[in-house]
Amino acid sequence: MLTVIEAQNLVLQHARPLPAELMRLDDALGLMLAEDIASDLDIPPYDKSMMDGYAVRSADLPQGNGVLTVIEEVMAGQTPRLPVAAGQATRIMTGAPLPADADGVVKVECTRLLDGHRVEIADAPVKPGQNILYRGREMRRGDVVLKTGAVLGPQDLGLLATVGRAEARLVPRPRVAVLSTGDEVVEAPQMPGPGQIRNSNAPMLLAQVRRAGAAPHYLGIGRDRVDSLRPLIDEGLRAPVLVLSGGVSAGKLDLVPGVLADLGVGAHFHKVEMKPGKPIFFGTRGSTLVFGLPGNPVSSLVCFELFVRPAVRRLMGHADSAPRMRPLPLGDDFAYKTDRPTYYPARLDVADDGWRVRPVPWFGSADLRALSGTNAFVLFPAGDHQHRQGQRFPVLICDTP
Amino acid sequence: MLTVIEAQNLVLQHARPLPAELMRLDDALGLMLAEDIASDLDIPPYDKSMMDGYAVRSADLPQGNGVLTVIEEVMAGQTPRLPVAAGQATRIMTGAPLPADADGVVKVECTRLLDGHRVEIADAPVKPGQNILYRGREMRRGDVVLKTGAVLGPQDLGLLATVGRAEARLVPRPRVAVLSTGDEVVEAPQMPGPGQIRNSNAPMLLAQVRRAGAAPHYLGIGRDRVDSLRPLIDEGLRAPVLVLSGGVSAGKLDLVPGVLADLGVGAHFHKVEMKPGKPIFFGTRGSTLVFGLPGNPVSSLVCFELFVRPAVRRLMGHADSAPRMRPLPLGDDFAYKTDRPTYYPARLDVADDGWRVRPVPWFGSADLRALSGTNAFVLFPAGDHQHRQGQRFPVLICDTP
Repeated sequence: MLTVIEAQNLVLQHARPLPAELMRLDDALGLMLAEDIASDLDIPPYDKSMMDGYAVRSADLPQGNGVLTVIEEVMAGQTPRLPVAAGQATRIMTGAPLPADADGVVKVECTRLLDGHRVEIADAPVKPGQNILYRGREMRRGDVVLKTGAVLGPQDLGLLATVGRAEARLVPRPRVAVLSTGDEVVEAPQMPGPGQIRNSNAPMLLAQVRRAGAAPHYLGIGRDRVDSLRPLIDEGLRAPVLVLSGGVSAGKLDLVPGVLADLGVGAHFHKVEMKPGKPIFFGTRGSTLVFGLPGNPVSSLVCFELFVRPAVRRLMGHADSAPRMRPLPLGDDFAYKTDRPTYYPARLDVADDGWRVRPVPWFGSADLRALSGTNAFVLFPAGDHQHRQGQRFPVLICDTP
Repeated sequence: MLTVIEAQNLVLQHARPLPAELMRLDDALGLMLAEDIASDLDIPPYDKSMMDGYAVRSADLPQGNGVLTVIEEVMAGQTPRLPVAAGQATRIMTGAPLPADADGVVKVECTRLLDGHRVEIADAPVKPGQNILYRGREMRRGDVVLKTGAVLGPQDLGLLATVGRAEARLVPRPRVAVLSTGDEVVEAPQMPGPGQIRNSNAPMLLAQVRRAGAAPHYLGIGRDRVDSLRPLIDEGLRAPVLVLSGGVSAGKLDLVPGVLADLGVGAHFHKVEMKPGKPIFFGTRGSTLVFGLPGNPVSSLVCFELFVRPAVRRLMGHADSAPRMRPLPLGDDFAYKTDRPTYYPARLDVADDGWRVRPVPWFGSADLRALSGTNAFVLFPAGDHQHRQGQRFPVLICDTP
């Protein structure tokens, strides 16, 4: 049977970044840039004042004191009309262009207006360039300001706007189709009849898809008949990723593998050496990735984080898209016996001196209730062990605290 | 002048959680529950098999060996019709209800079908309850499974579905209106004319709103005329939060404060002792919070994280919504001189042994380019200091690594 690492490697071998698309930037937060971005202009585009005050000639104020004639007033967004001659000053606002022949700005706090036309300056000696940001000091036309591979944060979206971009070539958000399966499954508001269970996995998986940064697409419930499953799976295979919930264990009514094979999905694995979640299917058709997750909710959740999320991240362009595993110390002693490597639900907290992970009381793969408030799984080895506080174990981080 | 902490406290005093609403759960990831959620049924709703195998009477298999007559086959979603009498077994699938009078399940791997009607068992001695999950073991009808104040993760959405909820009372996502101001501002695709600058702040702020978990609403650019600003501000005041970009410094053309006052917005502060970002306005009208952020992009970004994000989190119900500040060690030596407490852009990385924060080269509040790839700000004190590697400083975390 494959180990989790072997299975993850197989998945990632088949996951390739989606082709880049020219996209509007409104919904681009967290997406990866697929082109180098060059500035289309000098910034600032003119020598500009960094203060509210007076644009002056430094030669007029070698000691920082003097009285100058105010010849003009320039707001941000306006253009000065007059050059500053000897003995003159221009009233200027932060961000406004410097008038010709001025080479310094005295901030307004160091000035006193004597009348409408004269200003008294009482500053330190004025140095050339004082309070001026010269044209092109932040960037020059043609400078590459963001490179292929940058993951766009708010500041990058601001930067893209600065250089005139409302669109850019990005690796798009993969659509992830989710299909629940089984005659026994009913949707949440309905009261389950005898032998029925409510569909808890679809809402959970759709939220996991969203948390991974991808675009969830719910296909509904496929019933245990080929004529119900086939059109839904066919539709799901048009997405870059199809996630099936249930229908992949070895039980008699598991028609899903047959339908997948019929539709040209090649199987890569059916089982992984882990707990919870041993039966997990991974297959591909062309570039479409197909995951069959176990029906048990906790198994389903863990398998998504271990196998689907890394694939989704790879599709979004991330080269290092293996699951977020860290060797972190236990916050408490913990005795645990298991026959397979087990991902055990836990609460991960972060303090100034580091991380602490604490397993929560848990009754197994159907016990979703235990997971409320958890954000991680500790990977415990097979065997009967007394694990000690401070001992480090690999931790699968689902949500950073 | 107010310190950052004093200003934050003032903001949070005026920020109250939004009234809860009954909402569909499709877009509820990360929202806060505003009711206790009780289960409407026992789970499992019947004694169920945890394995594929045969439901048996333990009394028939004290040594685990024997041959039994198969009387029925029960799939998940089906209901057994026949009780299991002495010497009998029912073929059963994982998740299927246990037939009457059976008290154990032998997994299929320990059996061999002799013909269509008889099965040979070779298991360890069968114990009552073996491989059975009894009705109500996970939860009983009326049990509170999630409490008011829970922040919904994927697993909680699964749990809500389990107990029949497709809707719940939640604290909604606040709408945050963003208004750019200034005659000199043009939108990204446009080439700025003389004295004009592109609007980099709006795309950045809208992404920050989204990153904070709120719903961005862009109002466009208000021009430096009352008849342009007033209707836009009036519209923005209908949102729980209005963020104005630019227009709040002491310059002559800053009409915004006047329009805000006319529309009934009471001012709480105009300035905060910090760098970048000193001029920042905070006011309220009723329960609506109004922020006027500085026009410089880095100032705007920092002020959003320090003041707007905590308010948004409080509106979303989080009691502890102060900004994410941690005292974290510098990754490198860093010499820095500043006249006010300064939030300095930095890259925060996390390793197994803890965090490291590294300031990046930066030319001041207009230099957005420096911020690409950063996810934090280090707060350096006023003065001329040689800061040392390993020394701890408060760090404002914008995006967890």
